[in-house]
Amino acid sequence: MTKGEATRQRIIEQAAPIFNQRGFTGCSMQDLMEATGLEKGGLYRHFPCKEDLAVEAFKYALNKVAEARLGGGPHHEDGAIAKLLHGVHQFVKIPSPLPGGCPLMNTAIDADDGNPALRALAKEGIQAWKARLATIVEEGLRSGEIRKGTKPRAIANLIVATLEGALMISRIEGNRNAMRDAQQTLEDTLNGFAAQPTSRRRSHARTRPSKLEVLIRDSPDRFR
Amino acid sequence: MTKGEATRQRIIEQAAPIFNQRGFTGCSMQDLMEATGLEKGGLYRHFPCKEDLAVEAFKYALNKVAEARLGGGPHHEDGAIAKLLHGVHQFVKIPSPLPGGCPLMNTAIDADDGNPALRALAKEGIQAWKARLATIVEEGLRSGEIRKGTKPRAIANLIVATLEGALMISRIEGNRNAMRDAQQTLEDTLNGFAAQPTSRRRSHARTRPSKLEVLIRDSPDRFR
Repeated sequence: MTKGEATRQRIIEQAAPIFNQRGFTGCSMQDLMEATGLEKGGLYRHFPCKEDLAVEAFKYALNKVAEARLGGGPHHEDGAIAKLLHGVHQFVKIPSPLPGGCPLMNTAIDADDGNPALRALAKEGIQAWKARLATIVEEGLRSGEIRKGTKPRAIANLIVATLEGALMISRIEGNRNAMRDAQQTLEDTLNGFAAQPTSRRRSHARTRPSKLEVLIRDSPDRFR
Repeated sequence: MTKGEATRQRIIEQAAPIFNQRGFTGCSMQDLMEATGLEKGGLYRHFPCKEDLAVEAFKYALNKVAEARLGGGPHHEDGAIAKLLHGVHQFVKIPSPLPGGCPLMNTAIDADDGNPALRALAKEGIQAWKARLATIVEEGLRSGEIRKGTKPRAIANLIVATLEGALMISRIEGNRNAMRDAQQTLEDTLNGFAAQPTSRRRSHARTRPSKLEVLIRDSPDRFR
């Protein structure tokens, strides 16, 4: 990486939390100059306009989201419902991989009447997440683990809607109740889609909290 | 109402959709002047600062939301689950009572790292909605209609999270799939909380679509 490329990457990483917290229009050049310690000219050397930087910052945030939500998943042999529950668990554990809440929801809400490039990326991000979930449901249908007649798209919509809606409530209330309720409801609902109920599967998602989980649970500031 | 009061009210009504679509920081004085046809001085005569106008516009939007979501509910004797399903139905029928999506969610996301007055109002709005839902669940528990052990707070969180999350998905995708899936899932889940299953209750929420519903279904523009 050249020195110029490294600076460009540093700007993206420092701008991403600001855009995530304040939105595209809410984030001023002044904010970006303060976050990066660069003058306006320094920023424009790397990004011809604010939109270019916002797009790169959002792509960076989406990668952070994907990392956080996919990390350390169950093995293939654990089955479809375990995989779906693992995703729910990961979201509840790390709902905001960078300050300001879920970048997907923030940008979807911020850009749905606004910036078309960000809007397109947010749509792509939501649809990629839903497609991944639907694929897992299809695997479960093929293997006979998930009850016939279960609709992959409906399960994907249910998981994304419940988690994102619960995060919105949790952030405005300043506590984790809505997130915990969402996890519990999704566990019950997803286990209900099993062709044959098992108790092992449910226990998978309810192991003793890890050190990280305890840390997050006891540090409301980190969560906000 | 004096002429001054009427002008003030007109400004609030014209500003509300702009704030709902663009957010507090995303909405400029220029936008407000264009929407109201007033000069800066005319606006400042009625509202000493943008925040004052944003707060009044959000209160106006919250009233519109409450009107849309409560309208024409089932009678008391219909029971708790019918009341909850009616609320779900009303949300799906009119998710955006003014252009730009649900003002509660928009302001919750826009203000969670931002304006404290708007943040406080959004929190109040979400909690009032949840309290109304939890009260209905408590009625159902007392009357024996809803299964013992059902948690009022969890049901309230489930309904609000699923509907708001589904609206976010529907708006970014530009179709109503996520809203329809949310309605279906919530119908199944809420009917599952009945102490004694009935088929009448489910059919209540699945009557033939009204003229208004057909209009909304067939007019994606109105929905956006």
